[in-house]
Amino acid sequence: MIITGEALIGGVAVKGTQGPLCAYNPNTRQKMEPTFHTVDFAQIDQACRLAEAAFDTYRATSDEQRAVFLETIAGQILALGDVLIERTMAESGLPRPRIEGERGRTIGQLQLFANLLREGSYKDIRFDRAMPERTPPRPELRMRMIGLGPVAVFAASNFPLAFSVAGGDTASALAAGCPVVLKAHSAHPGTSELVARAIVKAIEICQLPAGVFALLTGSGNGVGQELVRHPSIQAVGFTGSRSGGVALMGVAAARPQPIPVYAEMSSINPVVLLPHALAKRAEQIAAGFAASLTMSVGQICTNPGLILAVAGPDLERFTAAAAPVLASGAACAMLSPGIAGSYGKGIAALAAHEDVSTAALAPQEEGKGAPALFVTSGAAFLSQHALSEEVFGPASLVVACKDIAELRAVAQSLEGQLTATLHFDDADLDTAHALLPILERKAGRIIANGFPTGVEVVSAMVHGGPFPSTSDGRSTSVGTGAIARFLRPVTYQNLPQSLLPAVLKDDNMAAAWHRRDGELLRG
Amino acid sequence: MIITGEALIGGVAVKGTQGPLCAYNPNTRQKMEPTFHTVDFAQIDQACRLAEAAFDTYRATSDEQRAVFLETIAGQILALGDVLIERTMAESGLPRPRIEGERGRTIGQLQLFANLLREGSYKDIRFDRAMPERTPPRPELRMRMIGLGPVAVFAASNFPLAFSVAGGDTASALAAGCPVVLKAHSAHPGTSELVARAIVKAIEICQLPAGVFALLTGSGNGVGQELVRHPSIQAVGFTGSRSGGVALMGVAAARPQPIPVYAEMSSINPVVLLPHALAKRAEQIAAGFAASLTMSVGQICTNPGLILAVAGPDLERFTAAAAPVLASGAACAMLSPGIAGSYGKGIAALAAHEDVSTAALAPQEEGKGAPALFVTSGAAFLSQHALSEEVFGPASLVVACKDIAELRAVAQSLEGQLTATLHFDDADLDTAHALLPILERKAGRIIANGFPTGVEVVSAMVHGGPFPSTSDGRSTSVGTGAIARFLRPVTYQNLPQSLLPAVLKDDNMAAAWHRRDGELLRG
Repeated sequence: MIITGEALIGGVAVKGTQGPLCAYNPNTRQKMEPTFHTVDFAQIDQACRLAEAAFDTYRATSDEQRAVFLETIAGQILALGDVLIERTMAESGLPRPRIEGERGRTIGQLQLFANLLREGSYKDIRFDRAMPERTPPRPELRMRMIGLGPVAVFAASNFPLAFSVAGGDTASALAAGCPVVLKAHSAHPGTSELVARAIVKAIEICQLPAGVFALLTGSGNGVGQELVRHPSIQAVGFTGSRSGGVALMGVAAARPQPIPVYAEMSSINPVVLLPHALAKRAEQIAAGFAASLTMSVGQICTNPGLILAVAGPDLERFTAAAAPVLASGAACAMLSPGIAGSYGKGIAALAAHEDVSTAALAPQEEGKGAPALFVTSGAAFLSQHALSEEVFGPASLVVACKDIAELRAVAQSLEGQLTATLHFDDADLDTAHALLPILERKAGRIIANGFPTGVEVVSAMVHGGPFPSTSDGRSTSVGTGAIARFLRPVTYQNLPQSLLPAVLKDDNMAAAWHRRDGELLRG
Repeated sequence: MIITGEALIGGVAVKGTQGPLCAYNPNTRQKMEPTFHTVDFAQIDQACRLAEAAFDTYRATSDEQRAVFLETIAGQILALGDVLIERTMAESGLPRPRIEGERGRTIGQLQLFANLLREGSYKDIRFDRAMPERTPPRPELRMRMIGLGPVAVFAASNFPLAFSVAGGDTASALAAGCPVVLKAHSAHPGTSELVARAIVKAIEICQLPAGVFALLTGSGNGVGQELVRHPSIQAVGFTGSRSGGVALMGVAAARPQPIPVYAEMSSINPVVLLPHALAKRAEQIAAGFAASLTMSVGQICTNPGLILAVAGPDLERFTAAAAPVLASGAACAMLSPGIAGSYGKGIAALAAHEDVSTAALAPQEEGKGAPALFVTSGAAFLSQHALSEEVFGPASLVVACKDIAELRAVAQSLEGQLTATLHFDDADLDTAHALLPILERKAGRIIANGFPTGVEVVSAMVHGGPFPSTSDGRSTSVGTGAIARFLRPVTYQNLPQSLLPAVLKDDNMAAAWHRRDGELLRG
């Protein structure tokens, strides 16, 4: 498969007509061939209109047909072979095992949604029988979920496969029966084109309408905003910065018809170290923390950016154990010069902050990120909101609280988070128990005696959380629950069998998971 | 129970400190005693803070405790006896059978949510087992739904019991474990106070924190906007006008932390009459239509405000059959002078419209509404958006299309609706089938050979639909699905049994509906 530098609209490769952009290899610091171009508004409009035109045909496919489609996409991605792995490594600066692992995750995600479709309960089928004898007679009601319509997906920079062109947002939207118009991330356009061509191939093989998927290329905010404004787009999936996500929320809310935005934005993922755990195993926790913090150069949404503990010798043992490991960490290429620049500014601001001391600061290099660890007091953290802002990269801030009451106040002061972690020993259980109600309201996932990096793609995963970790704390962007973001319920009252959607006809319904007069049943 | 004209905050009756307001009896055209007062911002703040303070205690109650609480509310409402019925009749102008029926519906709704809590599957419990042997080891993950936090509910004018103080929004939010701060509708403050006192009594009986419920009194938009702005409020339930709902959506989106708004706003509920059905039973359909249109003086969200059919003799038979029934309809008191005034303006504009002819116009009276039926062409409807705006009351517009293609275009042009209805005969089935994909995208409920008024409170009901019928087409405000609006998922990773929420502990989970490694099971 050759990368031509084109967008894919209606299954056809087309050059954008606007400004040029190239991929950049963070390791060689070289621009990469070929040159891509930003699409124009007519091309965006065309992609959205084709998605709209494809929607009714696509959503009428059976669960089995869409399952096969997702599996075919997975197969086509695998068939790209090492070309994909090498291009992704070059564009992201991430090492081979990480990218091979991420491809496995991407394939696994597509398979997970294929399995979910075959299991079928996501449709939330409901049936309330008619009661003709009642006054007034009760009609028969049947309900199912249908797709919202074409979905705009914005690829993330930090997972160029698993949260990008065929990532979780695309997989869950396609599973829901929604066509996808994907805005490629400008940091990995070649990777995006390769994966998009795999999807287009799968569309051809499965004989689906070409409008089911489009890849839009471009840099800057114009393409994305125009895409979200398009009347055919009915929902948005986004992974990226808080400013980017909030801007899209504004565009979506200002439309004549507002639409939902599922933006996964920013999180500092507090890790609470309770006193007895710290007394017993400060050094062990420090080792786990350093490994979690530096994974993928800290470019992970669930990176542990904040440590909360009570000040004292045990916390000093923790910091003393983590500091040398982090200070000796190598500077590694970050995903893009922009991310490296922001990281540099973020750690410089913390290093220069009068209420912050530097526990570890590995030698930094331009375009790269090396680990850093800072310490501040509970009082300083509580009084300065800037200290709670995300620094995307391998840096973390220890908040040394004067006591558990202050630690609770710090936890209470936090904005919404993807995760919150508790380290505790048996003697900490009461304290941990009292913290849980606070953490439940702050985060989508609570982790005991572990670290937040590592997000399993399973049924029980919530990768989401209250604003601003996401735009919508009622949702998850990882795991099977992600499909619910792109569905809405429709009730059918007194429809004859011949007019009912296939899944609601008596025989099919009886054989599937459904709720009959409120009671959950499987045929 | 005596009506004192007070708000109820923290279980205590307090006078608002701002401008006075009185209920108005639409039948006698008299103001009613006592005088109420609009609450001030400090009182709003107090109600919200108490709700916030009550949240953790309230959400920690068991499903059984909340079920008993909802049943206790129902019992206390019944215990108000005829005092409630008479006050509601006086404030709404609606007749006794309608109000007694609505009380039954309100009680039934509370019981339905109590049953839902006992059934338990609404919590969407999920469990993915640990795989310690995997590389890297897979952690154990458990998920459940928790309440979003305190909910602001805005009572509707048109269902002073079932969509008001203890209506569907309140019942579903309380079931979800969310305290409710309720903004009473200024059209029925006495009814509101009576029902609020019943809830407060139930809180006392069930020994719940007083902050679980508050009633705020007032007129104008200031109270509602301040309420939605309050940082403790985490979601909004609203039933009312499009302008009111859209204003609250704007306030909610502009908060530092945006929150979801579930606003049920406006719908004209298209009724499509297909040719063979019309040929066979134009007069019979007309009779059903007239009854549906005039129910409760047309002040029903699902009122059939639009008829779509192909022009010709059969449609003329329909209009000719409906017109005399409607033209001889009595002018009946509407809920408030404001609603009656808007209705008067709406029908006057249609009567004066150069592309609209008047088929029936019963004599109108000030403060009352009498039926009206208008006719326009498909071409006129397609070119003039104003013809698709809701006229709240017993008026409907027949759109005579030149053929099925134009009828499809008219259906396609509609904004989002709560309902869409199809009348068809066997010979119309192909036409009906081809219309379904359009209607599914426009409406939350599709009705065959019936009328949209009459909304069953059951599991399979969707009372919701794409914008602007509601602010969020992914939701329903009637039926058990309404609880999902006030819930969000939280995952617990590797928590020991002692720290897990009760419902996720091994024994409890095994006995309840849950999803184990993706598979739905009941213990």
